[in-house]
Amino acid sequence: MLDLEIRDNLPLLIHPDLWMRLEENKLLILDRRKLPRQIEFITCQDYEDVARSIEDMVVQGAVDLAITAGYGLLLAAQKKQKEMREAQAEGLRQAAMRLKNTRPTGHYLASMINKLLDIGLNALAEGQEADGAIHSALRELIKARDDAAQSTGRFAETILENGDTIMTHCFAATVLLYMLMFAQENGKAIKVFATETRPYLQGQRLTSFAIKQLGIPVTLITDNMPAYCMAQGLITKVFTAADRIAMDGSAANKVGTLQYAIIAHYHRIPFYIFGYCGPDAHTAKGTDIPIEERDPEEVLSFAGQRIAADGVKGFYPAFDVTPPTLISGIITDRGIFPAHLIKNYLAAPENPLI
Amino acid sequence: MLDLEIRDNLPLLIHPDLWMRLEENKLLILDRRKLPRQIEFITCQDYEDVARSIEDMVVQGAVDLAITAGYGLLLAAQKKQKEMREAQAEGLRQAAMRLKNTRPTGHYLASMINKLLDIGLNALAEGQEADGAIHSALRELIKARDDAAQSTGRFAETILENGDTIMTHCFAATVLLYMLMFAQENGKAIKVFATETRPYLQGQRLTSFAIKQLGIPVTLITDNMPAYCMAQGLITKVFTAADRIAMDGSAANKVGTLQYAIIAHYHRIPFYIFGYCGPDAHTAKGTDIPIEERDPEEVLSFAGQRIAADGVKGFYPAFDVTPPTLISGIITDRGIFPAHLIKNYLAAPENPLI
Repeated sequence: MLDLEIRDNLPLLIHPDLWMRLEENKLLILDRRKLPRQIEFITCQDYEDVARSIEDMVVQGAVDLAITAGYGLLLAAQKKQKEMREAQAEGLRQAAMRLKNTRPTGHYLASMINKLLDIGLNALAEGQEADGAIHSALRELIKARDDAAQSTGRFAETILENGDTIMTHCFAATVLLYMLMFAQENGKAIKVFATETRPYLQGQRLTSFAIKQLGIPVTLITDNMPAYCMAQGLITKVFTAADRIAMDGSAANKVGTLQYAIIAHYHRIPFYIFGYCGPDAHTAKGTDIPIEERDPEEVLSFAGQRIAADGVKGFYPAFDVTPPTLISGIITDRGIFPAHLIKNYLAAPENPLI
Repeated sequence: MLDLEIRDNLPLLIHPDLWMRLEENKLLILDRRKLPRQIEFITCQDYEDVARSIEDMVVQGAVDLAITAGYGLLLAAQKKQKEMREAQAEGLRQAAMRLKNTRPTGHYLASMINKLLDIGLNALAEGQEADGAIHSALRELIKARDDAAQSTGRFAETILENGDTIMTHCFAATVLLYMLMFAQENGKAIKVFATETRPYLQGQRLTSFAIKQLGIPVTLITDNMPAYCMAQGLITKVFTAADRIAMDGSAANKVGTLQYAIIAHYHRIPFYIFGYCGPDAHTAKGTDIPIEERDPEEVLSFAGQRIAADGVKGFYPAFDVTPPTLISGIITDRGIFPAHLIKNYLAAPENPLI
């Protein structure tokens, strides 16, 4: 496994310890809305600040959202140390509810909060401090998730061939970056096309920025250009993340993923999903995944500048669901699975912390 | 046919007389880059100003570009009235060359300039003024093209059913607007989804603005949302313009059109092309159509604001080519043709001015 300590010039977004830190009961989070032009941290005083930062896209990405929410619950646990035990437990439950309601589509966030809440409540029930228990569990989970990302990146790297030009949509975060770093280590020359990913522009702000930090050639295109690039033979493989994978092999990810899967299939280009730590055992089918609709104003404007005429409506579904028939393989920390057989992940040797 | 004079509140972009005018040897053009927030005209003193306005996206759309370039040639003819005849002819040829080199993908612009240049040169050869001959030919062509747009709009309207929600990409200009106006007249309730169409945002700036002016409900989505909308059953038909149609039924249009044709086909939603005045008889196949690549800076920036990190490359193919297998029909001023049989257009009863 890759040792974070010995790498210079690591992409800032590859590990939470690089983009988030706890300072005297405050949480400092790198403001991704300002990237890549400014490196600015915002300060969260309490879990409500953290919940708003999640809603307002200060941070994004299924796993990064989960870890940030985990720190939000830790802030709630720290604030409650001098209260009665039952009041502390109730406060933790309220904070957990608030944090879980921020972004409904991904399942890592709710799963992280449920685990940490149980640990906090158990500590209180046993007469211990909730914050210490939550903090140490959170650090273990962060470590386990980074291990899982590296493991997924290792499996993904085996798919890459020297000379590949891959396309990606939105920001597939640590797994994408690990895959590319491992390919570099193995001497594979890889190029990347990144879609800009309106309305939030993850491709402009995050993906191309992070890949450029690795020294890997990256070309930005707008969200309507992938079919042209595929028709011209410029793209050999497609990789995207997933916010939630259902047991039937459907994958929810940033809106647009479905259309790129369809056009990749049309052009006979393999389309892979980073499945990370597997499907959500509680979600049977793709149609069971709730699709978050965000404020349409984000579609009608750009970086705070209103473009559309008054009276024009906007529509902003933040995710879509790609069916398993369009997915060439789901890459996880336990190996690469055919999409239709992703439920086999659950029987594969597991990482007990994830 | 619809009488422009008797309609109030016509969309500004439906007829060149509403968005362009000649004043004392100067051409005033509505600056579409400022729409919809500001209604501003820029002034062109000579054909070079017009050529730059075309290159800089002051105006866009295959037919509107052709008419604007025609006025550019008229300015060149007006400037040369006191020169010797041969110098005037040479000046016209230079202006025609400059104007034809502005945007290579559409064929209307080159066709318009070739026609007007011949008319100007013939006038000079017969001892007449080139500008008078070009001006009257240009006015006839504008009238003929508006007739063709209305005729195309009438045929397109027959495809619409009460309750349809159509999707369109980029700005399909007069034909789209005529189709919707005729549907209104016939009491059909139609709704529209418009893609915003990065990088220039024709959907935000022009399409949704013009449809709103008609009082028809229009919803803007980003370029990555159409597949989600189709999967949800929100879209019943797709219509786009074409900058050039080859004799094999391939259609070049704004980049993104290909991917929307593929995903419409995947979802079994009919996908129609406004073919307007038919295929280009000089272009045999889709692969013969030159695809313009524009300055990648337009991808890396938004409304003059640079987003992407330094060192990230951009790629900006402005058009793509949709094969006839994905097109449900090409709608022209002479009727609706199966895409593979678009060459039959040339044998259909023709409008002699087009």
